[in-house]
Amino acid sequence: MTGARPGSLALRHARVRAQSLALAAGLTAEDCQLQSMPDASPVKWHLAHTTWFFETFVLEPSDSDYRVFDPAFRMLFNSYYVGIGERAPRAERGLVSRPSLDEVKAYRARVDEAIRQRLADGRFSETLLALIELGIQHEQQHQELILTDLKHHLSRNPLRPAYRLARPIDDAPGASLRYVAFDGGLSRIGFEGVPFAFDNETPRHRVFIEPFELASRLVTNGEYAAFIADGGYARPEFWLSDGWDAVQAAGWRAPLYWLDGPACRAFTLAGEQTLITAEPVCHVSYYEADAYARWSGARLPTESEWEYVAQAVPIEGNFVESERFRPRAASGADGVQQLFGDAWEWTQSAYLAYPGYRQAPGAVGEYNGKFMINQMVLRGGSCATPRDHLRASYRNFFPPAARWQFSGIRLAR
Amino acid sequence: MTGARPGSLALRHARVRAQSLALAAGLTAEDCQLQSMPDASPVKWHLAHTTWFFETFVLEPSDSDYRVFDPAFRMLFNSYYVGIGERAPRAERGLVSRPSLDEVKAYRARVDEAIRQRLADGRFSETLLALIELGIQHEQQHQELILTDLKHHLSRNPLRPAYRLARPIDDAPGASLRYVAFDGGLSRIGFEGVPFAFDNETPRHRVFIEPFELASRLVTNGEYAAFIADGGYARPEFWLSDGWDAVQAAGWRAPLYWLDGPACRAFTLAGEQTLITAEPVCHVSYYEADAYARWSGARLPTESEWEYVAQAVPIEGNFVESERFRPRAASGADGVQQLFGDAWEWTQSAYLAYPGYRQAPGAVGEYNGKFMINQMVLRGGSCATPRDHLRASYRNFFPPAARWQFSGIRLAR
Amino acid sequence: MTGARPGSLALRHARVRAQSLALAAGLTAEDCQLQSMPDASPVKWHLAHTTWFFETFVLEPSDSDYRVFDPAFRMLFNSYYVGIGERAPRAERGLVSRPSLDEVKAYRARVDEAIRQRLADGRFSETLLALIELGIQHEQQHQELILTDLKHHLSRNPLRPAYRLARPIDDAPGASLRYVAFDGGLSRIGFEGVPFAFDNETPRHRVFIEPFELASRLVTNGEYAAFIADGGYARPEFWLSDGWDAVQAAGWRAPLYWLDGPACRAFTLAGEQTLITAEPVCHVSYYEADAYARWSGARLPTESEWEYVAQAVPIEGNFVESERFRPRAASGADGVQQLFGDAWEWTQSAYLAYPGYRQAPGAVGEYNGKFMINQMVLRGGSCATPRDHLRASYRNFFPPAARWQFSGIRLAR
Amino acid sequence: MTGARPGSLALRHARVRAQSLALAAGLTAEDCQLQSMPDASPVKWHLAHTTWFFETFVLEPSDSDYRVFDPAFRMLFNSYYVGIGERAPRAERGLVSRPSLDEVKAYRARVDEAIRQRLADGRFSETLLALIELGIQHEQQHQELILTDLKHHLSRNPLRPAYRLARPIDDAPGASLRYVAFDGGLSRIGFEGVPFAFDNETPRHRVFIEPFELASRLVTNGEYAAFIADGGYARPEFWLSDGWDAVQAAGWRAPLYWLDGPACRAFTLAGEQTLITAEPVCHVSYYEADAYARWSGARLPTESEWEYVAQAVPIEGNFVESERFRPRAASGADGVQQLFGDAWEWTQSAYLAYPGYRQAPGAVGEYNGKFMINQMVLRGGSCATPRDHLRASYRNFFPPAARWQFSGIRLAR
Repeated sequence: MTGARPGSLALRHARVRAQSLALAAGLTAEDCQLQSMPDASPVKWHLAHTTWFFETFVLEPSDSDYRVFDPAFRMLFNSYYVGIGERAPRAERGLVSRPSLDEVKAYRARVDEAIRQRLADGRFSETLLALIELGIQHEQQHQELILTDLKHHLSRNPLRPAYRLARPIDDAPGASLRYVAFDGGLSRIGFEGVPFAFDNETPRHRVFIEPFELASRLVTNGEYAAFIADGGYARPEFWLSDGWDAVQAAGWRAPLYWLDGPACRAFTLAGEQTLITAEPVCHVSYYEADAYARWSGARLPTESEWEYVAQAVPIEGNFVESERFRPRAASGADGVQQLFGDAWEWTQSAYLAYPGYRQAPGAVGEYNGKFMINQMVLRGGSCATPRDHLRASYRNFFPPAARWQFSGIRLAR
Repeated sequence: MTGARPGSLALRHARVRAQSLALAAGLTAEDCQLQSMPDASPVKWHLAHTTWFFETFVLEPSDSDYRVFDPAFRMLFNSYYVGIGERAPRAERGLVSRPSLDEVKAYRARVDEAIRQRLADGRFSETLLALIELGIQHEQQHQELILTDLKHHLSRNPLRPAYRLARPIDDAPGASLRYVAFDGGLSRIGFEGVPFAFDNETPRHRVFIEPFELASRLVTNGEYAAFIADGGYARPEFWLSDGWDAVQAAGWRAPLYWLDGPACRAFTLAGEQTLITAEPVCHVSYYEADAYARWSGARLPTESEWEYVAQAVPIEGNFVESERFRPRAASGADGVQQLFGDAWEWTQSAYLAYPGYRQAPGAVGEYNGKFMINQMVLRGGSCATPRDHLRASYRNFFPPAARWQFSGIRLAR
Repeated sequence: MTGARPGSLALRHARVRAQSLALAAGLTAEDCQLQSMPDASPVKWHLAHTTWFFETFVLEPSDSDYRVFDPAFRMLFNSYYVGIGERAPRAERGLVSRPSLDEVKAYRARVDEAIRQRLADGRFSETLLALIELGIQHEQQHQELILTDLKHHLSRNPLRPAYRLARPIDDAPGASLRYVAFDGGLSRIGFEGVPFAFDNETPRHRVFIEPFELASRLVTNGEYAAFIADGGYARPEFWLSDGWDAVQAAGWRAPLYWLDGPACRAFTLAGEQTLITAEPVCHVSYYEADAYARWSGARLPTESEWEYVAQAVPIEGNFVESERFRPRAASGADGVQQLFGDAWEWTQSAYLAYPGYRQAPGAVGEYNGKFMINQMVLRGGSCATPRDHLRASYRNFFPPAARWQFSGIRLAR
Repeated sequence: MTGARPGSLALRHARVRAQSLALAAGLTAEDCQLQSMPDASPVKWHLAHTTWFFETFVLEPSDSDYRVFDPAFRMLFNSYYVGIGERAPRAERGLVSRPSLDEVKAYRARVDEAIRQRLADGRFSETLLALIELGIQHEQQHQELILTDLKHHLSRNPLRPAYRLARPIDDAPGASLRYVAFDGGLSRIGFEGVPFAFDNETPRHRVFIEPFELASRLVTNGEYAAFIADGGYARPEFWLSDGWDAVQAAGWRAPLYWLDGPACRAFTLAGEQTLITAEPVCHVSYYEADAYARWSGARLPTESEWEYVAQAVPIEGNFVESERFRPRAASGADGVQQLFGDAWEWTQSAYLAYPGYRQAPGAVGEYNGKFMINQMVLRGGSCATPRDHLRASYRNFFPPAARWQFSGIRLAR
């Protein structure tokens, strides 16, 4: 991570912190406590943990006078930083009825005010300013998780409740899929410069890319339905061995949230809704993305290929700011569309360190490096990502069986 | 079950229904949604399910005009009655943020009013009056579970919060343990007559009981601590084979809720408290009760022995009405004490049908009979049982590894 | 256990020991090493463990000069006697390629000779003579397990190999099922006297039995097929709650070893064979036996009822000596048939201590008592039981989900 | 895979087939049936499956007159080729006592003779000749597994039996560890040309390699013991998150086969032996290799770095031909030693497709491609690998938690 600008920092800190609360607006305390699986945390926990990050990594080191809001929170809202000490069990975050949502909001207010004052007073070192920047970026990541985790929580309620009312959807035919050719060659990927990137995007380095073609848009629900209709989930020849095992063990027959029955319906953040054919398919695992690609005679892109193309594309698309909370059908423009927003794109690259990668010293160094195993890289953000959180070099990562993110499919060949 | 008296029925119905809400008083909606394990349901679920019982088994059959509060509740709050139809998964009761606690209270109010009016109008048949009586008894069972389940839920919060403030405890030395001799012989156990018993207490039948001795009081924390100090959890010679396996697999080293550390502390419904030596030990499994008995050169009583003695003893003791929510040390009186209240007493009898047992026809017949396997009988009620819910013939039952009830140890020989 | 007669003891010891080897005749070393599940041990292990029993409980205590065959066997072939010391893991008995089958046979020969000589020399105390008797009875129990375990092992081979060639089966219509009435009353069950019983059959004691009726024969394959055809495995109303869970979890749709497909075929110790309609159904769990009884409007007998009847019946039937290795259809005689042999009969009695039960001191006391939990009693022996091993008071016991024994169904009402 | 030379093919086929039997020499039928875990197959199964490969992929397609040895073997000895049809369950390969080891040897002889004759007669097409070559290479892979699987099987026998007698070990001090610098740059890795490579080594392609240093030899037992002594297994800061979870879940405290106790002892193919300090450590998982590297301030090499160096190094080292069956201490020569043989070297590269990779059509295409997920690449072969089976481009792969191969550690930085 690199130097943040103090001036805008206070403003952005305030804005991003407010945005988390805005996402939770309309949710009851009961909604905010739900935890449907160990991987998906309660909204209340996200609101508390992001606050804990600022308190632990910024305020506590900033001055010895700082009095923590509640000493028990140090353990209660630590996610996975073993350098900080004990952690409450991840799978039991939904068992924390106390502190209440109101107390967590008071915790947020107190920590925000402490940051605000000290920023105004210019009391933070460069190191701590950089950690505030990291805290902002960290909070934006949790904003996406607030939505994807909540979607999973609500989906387990047999009544299929809605988070927000549905917006009108235009069921346009969408754009046809073309392949766009690229030369590749000795290229550079990874982040360099200012203002900010996570350590896993660095250092910028050379890679050699063979010539390739990239699909002009994401795979749609309609295209994916054709894969299903062609026996996609019943034909092992399309699947990685571990993927086939996952299909058998979990009984997958469609993307997560697609509902059984004759009509094409799916659970969304607006409750049960009709599937739109031209919308990008999402909530598929890497295994499904890879099987679909094989079925269609293509493959998934590498993260180098993706970034090579994305470096020349403006960061525009369907982000969380649209408050649509679902992907949008591609329209007819030229070139490669939907690179940013809509749905994260599984790449065929494992999440590993770039040559020369070094993680930050201390507990904050646990942020990324220790997860570099058994995960695949996703690129481009989704309809749940804040727009200004993304970069061409941004690397998201999930295990190949994960389906609860807005994860979709971009083909290459 | 047998004939209930309509006059008192309305009064008791109102009183018992109010008591459930009284137990939940002071709990937040977040508290009431907690579910710490599949076996332990949320308080909100208990409040809703007991209401569902009246709506489904009494109001719906009572007149065709009755309009259910919410058709979705039929599935959502069905516990295990397959005759009624689908059920929401038991392990996911804690994922129901909607309906909210307030909506569940409105559900209660509406169903209560419908019962009250129809009772006042004399519109219920004898069969439905008997089902109201069953519903009242059923609700009392869930009142005990509200407390034991809640204790488990709160115990998983690292902050160890309190349900109610602790009451002053007098740490008296307690009574010494004596054995009282009984002749036994051809005896009768089981229920016969009025006003009410569960089907599993019937029919009253003859059993032959050999002469035996029963301990004058429950085993205390102090006595149990001596068993631990003597290596009780490390010496397989005291344990049933399955019990020894459970000790190894679960890492048991003390009763549930005893806390590690030099001081003798335990989690209670008043938060973390000091263990009282003379209080009955509770939250032990059948395996631990049996191992303790073997260590002490005694055995557990059979349910016939227990009932033989209890038939002559008044139903007095430390029940939920004391609002103590923990067992109380025995005082020095003669005879067999603590038979009722304080802690359920594991017997060495498996939970099986009495000769000539018949379960009720229809879905309500699933109440007891289908659980007659893999469970052991407990007798006498606990500090969480309503006093007027108990009888000498009352049979409670849990699997031998269960520890989250107020289950204790009475010795025999 | 009680006094054995030395004269016949040597003879019986030699005969029973030879019979174990006879059962293994024709099996290869590879066959004898199979272990298809933790519960089912390899034939080689049975041959070694029964020898270990004599060496450990008889020869080692008998004189300090006795030199064990191999000190490592003390741990390797100990089943569950924690009083003796460490045990090799039960689930890994099939991983012991060394010692070889030939070495185990040499072990048997050496121990047999040591017993024989000392018996001839009259060097055993009464206590040790009683332990030899126990060892003989113990070996007979393992002879039955050799067959039932081997059946399970071979069944997992996709080629469905045969242990022994099939014998001609007469597919006679069989006897019709009648109910025979009994008065019951204050009765005595349990063993008393000579020459031998296991401790769990003692002491003989009084029980009160209500009047009852017992089915004249075992339930047949044809009758059980009617239960299946009537949706028996798909209708929860017939099942105990745990039984229904087992059906769902394990996908049971028929007794163990019945094969899918249009023809009624089953795996037997003679390989795949056609099911005989009139033969007793076997390889059913307690859950299935209980569900069948409920479907047919009857119930299972208690062990007291069964023994009450069996005390007046000679021990005749289809035992291992017939070398049929499968039950035989009942013929048309009067009274209660098939009480002994053919298939073990599940009773509705849990396996618990009789009043006044005491287990033997020392490690040998682990034989029975520590298993008195979570198991149901079966009575009467099977087509795999040695005839002279049985008594009216004999109690066999297995968990309610166990299906790999020759376990069948006798109805009562 | 590319063109095989028919002349040498017959010779090599005969030699490699004979070598499999030579590895099994001295093992009993009981030894050859052992299966200690689903991942590790019985020796008998390896002998049969490699034969099945030739029968299924070469003989059956070669002429319609070929009569299979036993039609049941098609299913019984298919490993994972879903294109061929059903497969017997992997975890139950140890339950196949029939066919016997002798029958499997007869199967081998018959198939070998059929190949030999048709080779002599020149009846194979180029495609089938290439499949014979693939079958030879496939058999060599299984030769290594025969040893590593057998080591695991025997290790579960509490008696710790030996496969072969120990050879004299010279406990020399070994060479000190140096780092050798390399320039890297735009390089080519992957296989191109003749005579043979697996499809996963192709196509040869360009990669850019930053300057790096490679350790002069493998990490030794002594060095690894220092990591343990420094609390390596108790300090999460060295571990990947999934690795730390694995350490906790499995209770790892040392490499697989190291024995508890004061003396440094380990289980080997010669039974229990003393650990040699200067020998390369082996039987470590990727997690342990990575944690060790982090502890020592270094990292693991990428597979590109490894191959870049190995392309210039002759294939010499301690292979299976030494019949040592354990790694050997490095001696004092210059340059990078032990690149080939001794122990497979974990790289930090995930096992993924090379750019332009295409798997072969048909069932044989399942050989490599479908495993390209959740595995890490190992390079260089081991003391259990046939020497002529290796190449600089050879890619082995295992999940990061696997420990039963001879897998060791080469450092880079």
